[in-house]
Amino acid sequence: MSDQAARLPPSVEWRDGALILLDQRRLPLEVRYRRLTRVEEVWEAIKQLEVRGAPAIGIAAGFGIALWALDAEADSPQSLLEGLERTRVYLESSRPTAVNLAWAVRRIFRACQSEPSVAAIRARALLEAQAIQAEDAEACRKIGEHGLALLPAGATVMTICNAGAIATARYGTALAPFHLARERGLELSVIACETRPLLQGARLTTWELASIGIDVTLITDSMAAHVMKTRRIDAVIVGADRIARNGDSANKIGTYGLALLARAHGIPFYVAAPFSTIDFELADGSGIPIEERDEKEIVEIQGQRIAPEGIKVFNPAFDVTPNELIEGLITERGVIRCAELDCHQARAMG
Amino acid sequence: MSDQAARLPPSVEWRDGALILLDQRRLPLEVRYRRLTRVEEVWEAIKQLEVRGAPAIGIAAGFGIALWALDAEADSPQSLLEGLERTRVYLESSRPTAVNLAWAVRRIFRACQSEPSVAAIRARALLEAQAIQAEDAEACRKIGEHGLALLPAGATVMTICNAGAIATARYGTALAPFHLARERGLELSVIACETRPLLQGARLTTWELASIGIDVTLITDSMAAHVMKTRRIDAVIVGADRIARNGDSANKIGTYGLALLARAHGIPFYVAAPFSTIDFELADGSGIPIEERDEKEIVEIQGQRIAPEGIKVFNPAFDVTPNELIEGLITERGVIRCAELDCHQARAMG
Repeated sequence: MSDQAARLPPSVEWRDGALILLDQRRLPLEVRYRRLTRVEEVWEAIKQLEVRGAPAIGIAAGFGIALWALDAEADSPQSLLEGLERTRVYLESSRPTAVNLAWAVRRIFRACQSEPSVAAIRARALLEAQAIQAEDAEACRKIGEHGLALLPAGATVMTICNAGAIATARYGTALAPFHLARERGLELSVIACETRPLLQGARLTTWELASIGIDVTLITDSMAAHVMKTRRIDAVIVGADRIARNGDSANKIGTYGLALLARAHGIPFYVAAPFSTIDFELADGSGIPIEERDEKEIVEIQGQRIAPEGIKVFNPAFDVTPNELIEGLITERGVIRCAELDCHQARAMG
Repeated sequence: MSDQAARLPPSVEWRDGALILLDQRRLPLEVRYRRLTRVEEVWEAIKQLEVRGAPAIGIAAGFGIALWALDAEADSPQSLLEGLERTRVYLESSRPTAVNLAWAVRRIFRACQSEPSVAAIRARALLEAQAIQAEDAEACRKIGEHGLALLPAGATVMTICNAGAIATARYGTALAPFHLARERGLELSVIACETRPLLQGARLTTWELASIGIDVTLITDSMAAHVMKTRRIDAVIVGADRIARNGDSANKIGTYGLALLARAHGIPFYVAAPFSTIDFELADGSGIPIEERDEKEIVEIQGQRIAPEGIKVFNPAFDVTPNELIEGLITERGVIRCAELDCHQARAMG
């Protein structure tokens, strides 16, 4: 497969004055890209989870605010900036808990504030959104480089959920090594855990990897231990939603169990994430709130009820993997051992 | 709740000259009992998985052969026995791999061979089928007694799949302690893992336990580690399909992972099964073949495709938990440590 064919079209892209968005709700049954030209459409797409993955949401919101700026009627820089501020607040309301979203639209607003003219503000909004996308792609590429360097030739890696290209500007985080491997003609294999309840592994990771020609095998989450015992698994690589300064990492529910199973089988367990995922305000994982979601995600599948009425259901969306189970954090700055995070913080601050 | 109300109607029962069968395929959405009066209906019910669980299948087949014997025209004991033999072979063909099925119909046939008259053969076929049912209920009750004695007051137990009353004559194996607890007004709680791919935990265990008033909480298999870390779990109790003479136990896929997670959290892990589940011919678990089933069980849920076409799928139905992870085997003879199995074998043989 050539470099070109191996490349997956971006899930979020600016093209001919519009935002082209992969509708992730329809995957894998339908691969549909939508063309959005109004900020209200972007708000709706974020709200309805057409775009998912914190970096991808931030990039989409950035292009959303640019769409508004390019189109808005304004007779002065001041009036355009006032409208931009209202649009920023509006976009942030689409998913209030997505940190990257607020970060992206605030960064664009700040950049625009120093521009002298209406035309300069419009241009700057788009340029800043494109910069956010480019920086994310570059960080993911470096994560891929560092991750790939950890793997032996022909390695088989297990993963959960989708920390993939479609959740970022390009390459993904946990899946970045596989995209780089395909660009270089290297053969790697992936075992994808289906990731109940929302099946991001079954629906998205298998689709993304099969699309670029990576050998991918789907299992249920309950098969991970048996597969680790009976097949050669060289590493487990997962993404992260938030990392405390001691390295404790919150990620999709099921990750902590996978880390324990990896340890029991002597398989190295890595967390791949941009350095910005590390929250140095947080001493350890006990401070990370675990969102509990609607029980329908478990008792209904594809809209059909599978469990009896009236039973209790527990549906935590994330779990926390303690630092001692993590071989290293694969970031754009290199592979960092949790024990070394303090030094990295000092360097970042200094 | 009174003893009476706490009791679940049997999934297999002889009443007024007919076999009353709970259609387990429709659970939990519909609780439907069917009345079968012909051996062909029993054959079909076994084939179509209306009845599941090795003991329950054996009991249903026993009543199937009795139904035939009671109804058959025969002018001599010899001709009735010849027909009985044909019916035995016919019933065994419904699910050739179910060991309890063959064992039950062969036992009934052997018992009938020593009877002197057509009337005596007819009576003996039914009596023997009822004896098989009664013995299974008694073994399960003892398993429940021994299991219950292991649990502190108000205990919370985690389980996977359905080793319950509806898979046996009564009480079940892994779920027997909870049925006895309800009969005695004791409060216990259960965390039921949903058990992908076929969701026996979500569909059957939750229904069975909620029906008798046990506090049951459903989780996905991927949540087990997080629940063990964040809630008090007193024990994990599971069933078994086959146990080697060193104690290695084959059970529903996901069991081995659960045992490793229990060990990591210091939670005792028990296997509950009739003593007959122990295969003393088998030195260890490496000799237990692991059935791989149709990938449709994973890539389709409720008939709807959830994963892309053309990917690989691995679907082992069972895994093997090594003896060192098992605190004890809960059998009708008591709780046996795997290291003591040899002595029990000697006693059984002696």
